[in-house]
This record gives sequence, C-alpha cells and structure tokens, in this order.
Amino acid sequence: MKVAVMGYGTVGSGVVEVIESHRAVISKRTDGEPLEVAHILDLRDFPGDEREALFTKDFNDILNDGEVKVVAEAMGGVNPAYDFTMKLLKAGKSVVTSNKELVAQKGLELLETAKEYGVNYLFEASVGGGIPIIRPMDQCLAANNIEGIAGILNGTTNFILTRMIEDKMEFSKALKLAQENGYAEQDPTADIEGFDACRKVCILASLAFGKHVYPNQVETEGITNITREDVSYIASINGVIKLLGQIKYISEDKIAAFVSPAVVFNGSQLASVNDVFNAILVRGDAVGDVCFYGRGAGKLPTASAVVADMVDAAKHTERRKIFGWGAGSEDYVVDYKTTISMPFYVRAKSSVGAIKSVFGEVKFLSRYGQPADEVAFITDKMTENELKNKLEGIKFINTIKITDY
Amino acid sequence: MKVAVMGYGTVGSGVVEVIESHRAVISKRTDGEPLEVAHILDLRDFPGDEREALFTKDFNDILNDGEVKVVAEAMGGVNPAYDFTMKLLKAGKSVVTSNKELVAQKGLELLETAKEYGVNYLFEASVGGGIPIIRPMDQCLAANNIEGIAGILNGTTNFILTRMIEDKMEFSKALKLAQENGYAEQDPTADIEGFDACRKVCILASLAFGKHVYPNQVETEGITNITREDVSYIASINGVIKLLGQIKYISEDKIAAFVSPAVVFNGSQLASVNDVFNAILVRGDAVGDVCFYGRGAGKLPTASAVVADMVDAAKHTERRKIFGWGAGSEDYVVDYKTTISMPFYVRAKSSVGAIKSVFGEVKFLSRYGQPADEVAFITDKMTENELKNKLEGIKFINTIKITDY
Repeated sequence: MKVAVMGYGTVGSGVVEVIESHRAVISKRTDGEPLEVAHILDLRDFPGDEREALFTKDFNDILNDGEVKVVAEAMGGVNPAYDFTMKLLKAGKSVVTSNKELVAQKGLELLETAKEYGVNYLFEASVGGGIPIIRPMDQCLAANNIEGIAGILNGTTNFILTRMIEDKMEFSKALKLAQENGYAEQDPTADIEGFDACRKVCILASLAFGKHVYPNQVETEGITNITREDVSYIASINGVIKLLGQIKYISEDKIAAFVSPAVVFNGSQLASVNDVFNAILVRGDAVGDVCFYGRGAGKLPTASAVVADMVDAAKHTERRKIFGWGAGSEDYVVDYKTTISMPFYVRAKSSVGAIKSVFGEVKFLSRYGQPADEVAFITDKMTENELKNKLEGIKFINTIKITDY
Repeated sequence: MKVAVMGYGTVGSGVVEVIESHRAVISKRTDGEPLEVAHILDLRDFPGDEREALFTKDFNDILNDGEVKVVAEAMGGVNPAYDFTMKLLKAGKSVVTSNKELVAQKGLELLETAKEYGVNYLFEASVGGGIPIIRPMDQCLAANNIEGIAGILNGTTNFILTRMIEDKMEFSKALKLAQENGYAEQDPTADIEGFDACRKVCILASLAFGKHVYPNQVETEGITNITREDVSYIASINGVIKLLGQIKYISEDKIAAFVSPAVVFNGSQLASVNDVFNAILVRGDAVGDVCFYGRGAGKLPTASAVVADMVDAAKHTERRKIFGWGAGSEDYVVDYKTTISMPFYVRAKSSVGAIKSVFGEVKFLSRYGQPADEVAFITDKMTENELKNKLEGIKFINTIKITDY
C-alpha cells in the first residue's frame, strides 16, 4: 500500500527508516502487502539523501495521489499540520500523527472529521512516544471506571530531575547536560515549563473521560523552581521529585487536570522511572493500578508507534477505529487548588515553633548543611488554597505537592 | 446483548459482578447495548445467591441459546473447558477466557477453529491478569522485531520472594503467610514450582513469535531452592531475586524460553515489582524496552480483563480480531542451557582460592554471618552447561541466573 510522510525531521525520517527496515514484520500484519513510501513532504532540501526521489514541497502531490490511503504527519505545530490533516481526511485518507500539540488543540475537530468521512485519525505516538498507551487505556476503559491517571510524560525534565537526584547536580547544570546530550532544545521552555507534558495530559484526559480538554484548562507548573536542597529533603523521606501530569475523576461533568512537580515515594512504579523514560499509571476501580513504561521520545521509539498506527490504519481502510471523544466545556476542568486535597512539602525560612503554631504537629525533615533558620516539613492533607492561606506571613521558599501514586 | 459465564469461582463471579457494576462504561463501548448475563454454568450449588435464576448445570442451555453470542470461560483446567469452548466456537459464538492452562495447551486448535467459524477467541486475562498485554504486544509487534521478553508472571511467588527480601523471612514462613492471605493455594505446587508462570510464557512466546510453544518445551525451575542467604548475598550487590519467565528470539525458526529464579538489579523496572504485582517487559529493536505493570491476579482485576474482551467480542461479532499464531514444532524451542550465555550467581562450600583457580578473577560477595567455608560470587558470561562443567568437583549450594533486563 502506498503511504506518505509529512515532515522529515527526527520522527518523520525515523518513520521512513522503520518502514524500510521492518518490511517483514509489517507485511505479516498487512496480509503480505508492505507499506511503500510514495511521497515525503518537507520544505527543506536534503541534497544527497538516498530518498531524494520521494521528496516534494507540494502538499498537493500527496492530496491528489489517489493510491495513497494512509499519511503520517510528523510536522509538529498546529499550522499548517491542521490544514493539511483536514484536507487529507476529507479526501478519504487516514492520518496518523505524533503531533501532540495538534491533537491537544484540534483533536476534537479532526476526530469528528475523520468520523464524518469514514477514515481514521490515530495518535498513539503523541503520548509516551513508543509506549503503547492509547489502545491499552481503551481496553482498561471497557470494564473500569477510571479514577485517576498520573504520568511522567516528558523525558527532558525527567532526565534533568534524575541528574539532580542521582548526581546532586544543580538545575542549571543538569539542563546544560541535557542540551549537550540532545535531550533538550536550545530553547528548552516547552519542556522545563511543563507545556509539553500539559499537551499530553490534555490527550490522556480527553481519551479517558470522553470530553476534549484544552491546554489552557490545565494549570501547568514547570521544574525551574526545584533545587538540590528540595531534592535532598525529599530523599530523607525516601521520595523523589518528578514532573507529573495528574488527572482525577470528580464526576461525570468534572475532572481535575494539572501538571506540576510532585513527590513520589520509592516503591511506587513512578519513582524508578529515570532519565528520558516515561511512564503512565492508570488507576481503575476494578483493575487497580496499571502502569505503562518505556521511551517517551526519540527517533525510533516514536517512529515505531507511528508506523504501528499506519499498519492499523492500512488494515482498517474499510472500517474505523473508535478512539475519540466529544466536545468539552469551559467549566469541565475544575480549579484543583480549591478542590483536591493532598499533603504538601514546604521549605521555609522559619522556625519549628512558628510552623507548629500554624500547621500543628507536622513531620519535619532535615538535610546535610541545613541552615539554622530553615525548616522543611510535610503538611496534613489540604487544598493548595488552604496551604496558601496558612503560609501567609511565613517566608516560604518552595512548596511541592505529594502524590498518592 | 446476551452473554454467558462458565465457571462461578473467583474469576467467574467477578465477571458477573463487573458486568453488573459497570453497566454504564460497558454500554458506552457497545453502542448503548449493555451485556446481559443470561446463563451461569457451574456444577456446584449456590443456594441463596442473588443470581440463582441464572444458574445451570447443563452446558447445552448455553450452547443452544441462539441469542448468546459471547461466552466467558473461567472454569480453569483443560477438561471440560476445551470441549465446551470448541462446541461454542463451532456454534458461531465468540469465547473469551482467563484459562491460561487451556490456552497454553490447546490455543492453536481453538484459534484455528475460531478463524474457521468466523468468531473470536480472546485471552487477554490469561496473562498478567488485569494488565493489558496481548493488545499492546500486538501493537509493539507491528513495527518492531521483538528481541526478548521477561516477565514476573506469578503473583504468589512474587509475594513470597518479596517477603523474603523485605522481611528476611524464610521461604517456608513466607509461603505460609501467602496461604494465610489467600495468595497461595493449600497445594501451592503450580505456583512455587513455576508451572503457572510456564503457561504464561507459552502464551507470550506463541503470540510474540507466531508459533505455538507448549509447556513441556519450556524448562521450568521454581523458587523452592531460594534461601535467605541467597537473598542476602544478592542484596549486597543491589539486586533482588525474582521468578522470571524469559523468552529470547534466536532466529526465524528458533527461540529460547525458560522459567527460573533470576537476579534483577535495582534500577530495572522489574526490580520494583513487589508483592502480588506482575510486570512484563518487552524488548523491541525500534522501541527499546517497554514494560507493563499491574495486578496479575485477583478477582476484579482479572474479571475486568475478561469483561474488556467480552466487550471487544461483542463489538466484533461481524468481524474477527487477528490475535493468534500457527503451529510450532518439536525443535523450535532450543535448549537454552547450551545456547544462552549469561553471568551466574554461585554459592558454594569452597574457598576463594579454589574458586579463582576454576573461574578466574570473579566478583566475590559477602553477607552478615557468612561461614568461613562459604563463598558466593558472580561468574563471567557462560552457558548453564559450561557453568555445570566448571562446578564439577566444587560443592556448590545454589546457582541463580543473572538477567540483562
């Protein structure tokens, strides 16, 4: 079957590579018919590339090729990927994507269009890179009420935090190392501020609870305020700090969804997810906790998920897969700061006495080199707003949520 | 849609319970049509059970009910489950099962019959209880050459080993605790001798590499020889002992598959799988390592996987899912003892000098209370037969494989 690839960056070139190098396994799944890349769309030139004959700068070459039934979109960004994808779906072609930004922003319209035109829009690679999560979640959903989801969804920040934890690095030095290793962009904002994780939370929440959640509905806090001192206090109680995306079911019409640093205790499956690995934990009322772990980014892992979707779309040209969701609403995602209670880690310039007079008998932490005027402690369960009120008048340095995952 | 459940033990009663308690989520997936349990087959009486009206002791009540399109088999054992399943498939009914013994022994015939009669035979719950593994593996397989699989597949033995590791219990005491907690049967043989894990290895290997592997082809060693002393030596090098099922790709016509205690080092996703939890790690050439974790047994987790399969079968009455495999052969599974090289942990009544003279400069381990005439060490990579040869003349107490997972 003829297919096309849009975008020849890391993922797109990986997709072409996996299709070429995995002809045998792919053919087994498509009744002996291999996928043949007929067009590669990219505005850049790749002189000397062995696939030069396949390149085009004209999107219409793909749109108008009636033999192309499945297209991989690995362009990234909302435009022109949205416009192209819409046109392809309306032309009766299935589209698979690794583009989390597009799915998070425009997934609803694209899924509805795919449904209308009887084709597939698949996005396994948009969350967790190579980790199968969209289909397994679909399966968990079939006989469970999902209570919550927690995920380490960004490899760059997890690499940075791992270096801070294991090698006692400062944030800035760990970020530099991530950049030197190619794990972080020159402008690392989307990763370290949590925006990338936020998009993935939107996709997981939309899929899990059936209503589109948009990035601006998900309160997002990055890891730039995390210090070696915080890491050290948390280590003293056998915990680690991770950037977590969390989603909690509240009612048929309400969920909470947020991205922030969070304390996970050793023993949790999420605690041992290190370096650029990702993991997604799904909590169902019948199955309990299930967890999916693997490489959340990288050329071949992500490409293998894109190609698996292409194979699936190729097998289902006559029939749609049903992954999807409906419209959301402005008040669907609640303000977690006033609704979700949890314990917090707090570090402050204060005294044990002053803290006790406000927070009662809390657990105090200690670290090597702790200054006499610094305290760190774990609060009882409360909302973030309640915490904020209690901290009024206290010179706090940092607060971090503590999870029950 | 009318469905039936065969076997009203732990899993079967859980299936009925999940169908009743999850009407809303199930209906969402089946276009508004809930599953209705029309018959429950069990030879026992359940006087006073609220579902009394549904019970039958006559299999023909299910076989001859033309409205029943999907049947859950949770009887366990090969007979009469095999006979019943065959008849149902031939009558055009899809069957889903949690019965690993039946799938491992008779999966090929049942899958071929299902294919012939255009119905589904689904078995997600037969491996890893509630953990989605069959479908995710299918997805991994679509664009990866699978290099190997390693799994903690039996909750009972993992509970026992966890207690030996965390609480320094003797094996016999940990087994007793497992029995008291309902995690182990009065006759614990199938679990502690590795037979249960062996059946799951057969199913995973058959699915991953497309040829049926039978239990008698998988060399199986249980955990009864593991002692606190071994646990203690292994802890000194930051490792833990797990009962692992391992499968390794060798060539298109050869695999290795075996069940045994094995050393996993902390940092591996498999090392932090404790108590009755299971995990399955799949290593693909494109995706790298992915790992699936959750409750591998228990009433509701397993039942939720059975019901998810029932939902899938209910949605696909017109169309078959393609999970399956072909015939195997006697020489398909190689003797791993002569082909797979790995390091080993060895404990012996010997001396450092004697060991060095045979094994060269190996790493020696120590433990609290180590007798003067006992040594423990880690060998270089070798096959198990090579190890056996080298150990001739040495009074060894135990040897344990060391994994690269």
